[in-house]
Amino acid sequence: MAKSTQLIDNEVFRAYATYAAIVLLKMMLMSLVTAYFRITRKAFANPEDTASFGKGDSAKKFLRIDADVERVRRGHLNDLENIVPFFGIGLLYALCGPDLSTALLHFRIFAGARILHTFAYLIPLPQPSRGLSWAAGYAVTISMAYKVLSKALYL
Amino acid sequence: MAKSTQLIDNEVFRAYATYAAIVLLKMMLMSLVTAYFRITRKAFANPEDTASFGKGDSAKKFLRIDADVERVRRGHLNDLENIVPFFGIGLLYALCGPDLSTALLHFRIFAGARILHTFAYLIPLPQPSRGLSWAAGYAVTISMAYKVLSKALYL
Amino acid sequence: MAKSTQLIDNEVFRAYATYAAIVLLKMMLMSLVTAYFRITRKAFANPEDTASFGKGDSAKKFLRIDADVERVRRGHLNDLENIVPFFGIGLLYALCGPDLSTALLHFRIFAGARILHTFAYLIPLPQPSRGLSWAAGYAVTISMAYKVLSKALYL
Repeated sequence: MAKSTQLIDNEVFRAYATYAAIVLLKMMLMSLVTAYFRITRKAFANPEDTASFGKGDSAKKFLRIDADVERVRRGHLNDLENIVPFFGIGLLYALCGPDLSTALLHFRIFAGARILHTFAYLIPLPQPSRGLSWAAGYAVTISMAYKVLSKALYL
Repeated sequence: MAKSTQLIDNEVFRAYATYAAIVLLKMMLMSLVTAYFRITRKAFANPEDTASFGKGDSAKKFLRIDADVERVRRGHLNDLENIVPFFGIGLLYALCGPDLSTALLHFRIFAGARILHTFAYLIPLPQPSRGLSWAAGYAVTISMAYKVLSKALYL
Repeated sequence: MAKSTQLIDNEVFRAYATYAAIVLLKMMLMSLVTAYFRITRKAFANPEDTASFGKGDSAKKFLRIDADVERVRRGHLNDLENIVPFFGIGLLYALCGPDLSTALLHFRIFAGARILHTFAYLIPLPQPSRGLSWAAGYAVTISMAYKVLSKALYL
């Protein structure tokens, strides 16, 4: 019973939990941004979502693709493609007993890079801002995967 | 060695494992629903998938977008966007040692909300059924993230 | 403190960490393959990505959908839809204390099936190669979920 509170007492695991929660919350925020753009741009994907705008053709014109909505959706999907590996590999990495300072460096760079990536995607900032922030998060995840495989390898 | 069986003996962790497995299986079911609609609607995305319908133009007409298939795919993507944060934040939450009854309340609401969301999306039910079931799952995940950050915060 | 190194000393957990890292890295590789096809096919989704090709209409023609890019993106999304459940259910399964040989069998089949699936999608190989490799990974995940639910069930 006491077990479940022990892992969370480990400083590396606490750091992991903190940054993992932050980037997952950031990813969840993309749902709200999508909803905001869908409502302000009046651009929906499902007929039932436009019912409040009237019936027939008056509602059907809101079933459309909007460039701003698609941009947020691409950012959301990019989050999934990158934050899922960070969450998974980061969890295994945190359980491999890395140095606290090294672990914090990895987690902080990843979280910072993904927050920058979101601003670069949504504003949008000129390239290579988005490319570099994506690459920083990617490189950090590869570095953690290397540690996991060198510590845990059991094929 | 005995270690791996201890976490699973914790009641909160067992509850987490149960509901996490349920919602992940529910998400996996969306793949089968997509396949069902692709086959019955004869609407495929890849040329090699239509080879059994003949060659050339007779097969090419099945490379098309179907409204029912796209609806299931949107539901599947929405699952990914919401069940991934639940899995990740819920795992950290379960390791934070919450009360069993509070934890069960969170897990049950989330699982119920996502099952309702799937029915609301696929039938489809009139809004705000889908919106409210989405919001319930979202709120539960935020509530668990708050607990994780207040217990584990280590920046 | 010593805690975080104990789970990783468990052989089943080490095997899980190894194969989970491998399939997550394989999924991450899809980002690079997408970037490769976007650059060689000159098919981009964001106006800021085409700025280096000049301004106005000369750049705008590269904002287009390319069949090869879309194929990689479908493969990437299919990875997300299948590797996320494997990661989540596999983690719970590894904590349920399965036999090492049974666990290795599950992990190896899944990793092999997903690597085959990627080749079948990208080359592409004629069906049912892609369908069967998808089904093998799916079946393994279901089998692990069954073990998790029969061991941990707490509703």
